[in-house]
Amino acid sequence: MRWRYIINTVSILIIFLGLSMILPLICSIIYQDSGIIPFCKSIFCTIVLGLIFFFIFKYEKTDHISAREGMAIVAFGWIAIGFFGALPFYFGFAFDNFTDAFFESVSGFTTTGASVMVNIEAISKSVLFWRSFIQWLGGMGIIVLSLAILPLLGVGGMQLYKAEVPSPIPDKLKPRIKDTARILWNVYMLITVAEVIFLLFGGMSFYDSLCHAFTTMPTGGFSTKNASVAHYDSFYIEMVIVFFMILAGINFSLHYQFLRGNYKIFGQDTESRFFLILVFVLTLIISIDIYIHNYKSIIEAFRFSSFQVVSILTTTGYGSADYELWSPMSQIIIVSCMFIGASAGSTGGGMKCLRIMIYCKYCYKELISLIHPRAVTQIKLGGHVVSREVVNSVLGFMGLFIGLFIICSILLAGMGVDIVTASSAVASAIGNIGPGLGLVGPTDNYFCIPALGKWLLIWCMLLGRLEIYTILILLVPEFWRK
Amino acid sequence: MRWRYIINTVSILIIFLGLSMILPLICSIIYQDSGIIPFCKSIFCTIVLGLIFFFIFKYEKTDHISAREGMAIVAFGWIAIGFFGALPFYFGFAFDNFTDAFFESVSGFTTTGASVMVNIEAISKSVLFWRSFIQWLGGMGIIVLSLAILPLLGVGGMQLYKAEVPSPIPDKLKPRIKDTARILWNVYMLITVAEVIFLLFGGMSFYDSLCHAFTTMPTGGFSTKNASVAHYDSFYIEMVIVFFMILAGINFSLHYQFLRGNYKIFGQDTESRFFLILVFVLTLIISIDIYIHNYKSIIEAFRFSSFQVVSILTTTGYGSADYELWSPMSQIIIVSCMFIGASAGSTGGGMKCLRIMIYCKYCYKELISLIHPRAVTQIKLGGHVVSREVVNSVLGFMGLFIGLFIICSILLAGMGVDIVTASSAVASAIGNIGPGLGLVGPTDNYFCIPALGKWLLIWCMLLGRLEIYTILILLVPEFWRK
Repeated sequence: MRWRYIINTVSILIIFLGLSMILPLICSIIYQDSGIIPFCKSIFCTIVLGLIFFFIFKYEKTDHISAREGMAIVAFGWIAIGFFGALPFYFGFAFDNFTDAFFESVSGFTTTGASVMVNIEAISKSVLFWRSFIQWLGGMGIIVLSLAILPLLGVGGMQLYKAEVPSPIPDKLKPRIKDTARILWNVYMLITVAEVIFLLFGGMSFYDSLCHAFTTMPTGGFSTKNASVAHYDSFYIEMVIVFFMILAGINFSLHYQFLRGNYKIFGQDTESRFFLILVFVLTLIISIDIYIHNYKSIIEAFRFSSFQVVSILTTTGYGSADYELWSPMSQIIIVSCMFIGASAGSTGGGMKCLRIMIYCKYCYKELISLIHPRAVTQIKLGGHVVSREVVNSVLGFMGLFIGLFIICSILLAGMGVDIVTASSAVASAIGNIGPGLGLVGPTDNYFCIPALGKWLLIWCMLLGRLEIYTILILLVPEFWRK
Repeated sequence: MRWRYIINTVSILIIFLGLSMILPLICSIIYQDSGIIPFCKSIFCTIVLGLIFFFIFKYEKTDHISAREGMAIVAFGWIAIGFFGALPFYFGFAFDNFTDAFFESVSGFTTTGASVMVNIEAISKSVLFWRSFIQWLGGMGIIVLSLAILPLLGVGGMQLYKAEVPSPIPDKLKPRIKDTARILWNVYMLITVAEVIFLLFGGMSFYDSLCHAFTTMPTGGFSTKNASVAHYDSFYIEMVIVFFMILAGINFSLHYQFLRGNYKIFGQDTESRFFLILVFVLTLIISIDIYIHNYKSIIEAFRFSSFQVVSILTTTGYGSADYELWSPMSQIIIVSCMFIGASAGSTGGGMKCLRIMIYCKYCYKELISLIHPRAVTQIKLGGHVVSREVVNSVLGFMGLFIGLFIICSILLAGMGVDIVTASSAVASAIGNIGPGLGLVGPTDNYFCIPALGKWLLIWCMLLGRLEIYTILILLVPEFWRK
């Protein structure tokens, strides 16, 4: 492990973060709000500390990078970014303690969207802009991480996206991380711009459109309004956001292929097909269920069910209705969606559809092997055989996901949080969703969680966002051995 | 598939069930209660129908039996036994509809212990005797199933207990099903007799001692009292039951070895060591937690925590305290225990410690493989390598367990049952425990569940008890093909 190299790379990220704070500073100047001094302070601290680390741990350029180093850069990079990203919240008096500022920042960069802000609309515009913007930056990080870095590191089944694996998707993408990143970021930016335009048509202000597009595309879910998207009470705006949440929940390399002219790609790709069918079926079931139990018109039922299903399944976490008032079945489906999550290679969290599919196929294969014990049945996805290594990684990932969910729920409950709140808060944090049930339901926030619990949830958010392995590996003694 | 052979074998089981009803008939004659006519009716129906099936589907003796036939006998045998076992409840006016009688009977034979009886103490003694006795019979079935039949069928990792597999445990047991069964049943009976004697010392009546021993050893949990074991309010009785529940939660082939003179076996065997440590650690944590939050003395906290941890972890389900009043952490640990369950080869349900251990080791192995991608690490248990097939079966089992838990929870919630009650009722049924949370908490019962929901839970109890695969395979079209 070349620690100098790792710290050097992370310090470059910090410097870029400092530079990106210039945008909310401009926002602050335009709106003449109280953010000018906090952002100047934050920019100064971030860039100066970044530069100091950069020069102390200077390292000549290298092309080789080991798997362990890659994971250390990802893990420490995200933690450092979360730390420095919290400075504007802290200096901007959004919170009176650093824990809350750090929680909000990590929730942003991991695109979770769990908030500890009690009265969002009382916060200055530039700080709220930063709050949305860090989700967008986090989304950029996730796309590169899941489609360019993790496949090479062989984490949690993401090897499937390695160019060498015969898969219909990634072989058209240029293999090197830099090029992959550039292509995908262009797609990401393009879709963001499109959403801003569509939201403007719905009568949203430019500032709000930008902030909401910044939190839709990374499936983040921070809103500039206390009531989240419900504030606008507009069918049009909700449907625009539903559409873009669905886009954000699909593998970004498919969007690239779509833009290149392959218009059938969303139907051809097994995972996106599964995801879209899931959205359709669950919306249908919940629409009927809440039409019977909660709403007067079927249109209204469809409007709220589609929004909530997509919001939770893509792990965005916007609120348009209080699903805790819905019938038990709809509630439990919403909770299940928290675990499923969006597609791999999207900005969404959760276990991801790809893994759910592989796991279902695996279980079915095991069942069949009882009837035909000697049949060597392989798991296929989209006509291609999924290698044993990928299946193993996927199963290990899901085991760790569930195991950590249980352990962290017990720990959070041990801090005096009730059982429904504790387990849903942890599920929401590991799945990078935002709202949960009970005291952290869609109309509440995480303010009520004790400070130690917030640190636990910060850890959960990082765990979930970095596909568990990348963070968990830091706890394995073998990782630190030479 | 030789259907004649399958039906013939099941009809033999039915005839034996009819004969076993003579015992509660004797009980009825002794206590001069209202059970004489109901039991005569039940014995007549059961034996006559059994004989009719036996002669219609006559089949000459055969030594060969295919895996599919084995599974069909197990699945249909348990369903048929559940059906005929319900007759005394139905004829004895314990319930006014057959659904409830069937629920109670399946809950008995699967050693679940979930009850729909509202006022247990109002029911005649002979019927209550039958209710306890069927759990004891169910326990006998489970021991043979898990240690003699499933290993041969290769179900859910139980192959580990196949005599061929180098394992410290079963190679001393005679390999053939009949001999294995006879040995294990003797052990089972011996421990039951011991428990009766110990309970008599505690001042329990002979009838109650017998009934409680009949439901402790199969980790069943039916009690003859409305308040379950809490009725006696005796520290001695609770500790006796705790001790025998722990015995019931350990692989019965270890008891055999213990009786043969290998007194260190419980410490040597990896799984029983894991199980005993788990009991100790969880009791310790909950004792401290409820001492701080709920009870005045540490002795009282230990008394209730040890009883509840053992009762839920072994999936017995006796009640001595209302754990829903405990602190959130203790509650969530109790819920986690529902999923873990006892040892494989015991009468307990749940996922089983063996599988949890294999899964944990598997996840750790996957984590390590990120650091050393080329290292072929094998999973070892007690010094022996666990084969890939066993690991696959275990992972498949756990996936199906969790998947079915989620699907059935959604279905039960769809019948209007609230989310906590629905999910805990399903967890409790699949894990063969008994009590859950909410409306099916330790002081409530399953009377409130709608009729359709009871049928769903009947299916869940059978699923869990027959290690999921055996029941689920009936739904796979391939199973029915020639």
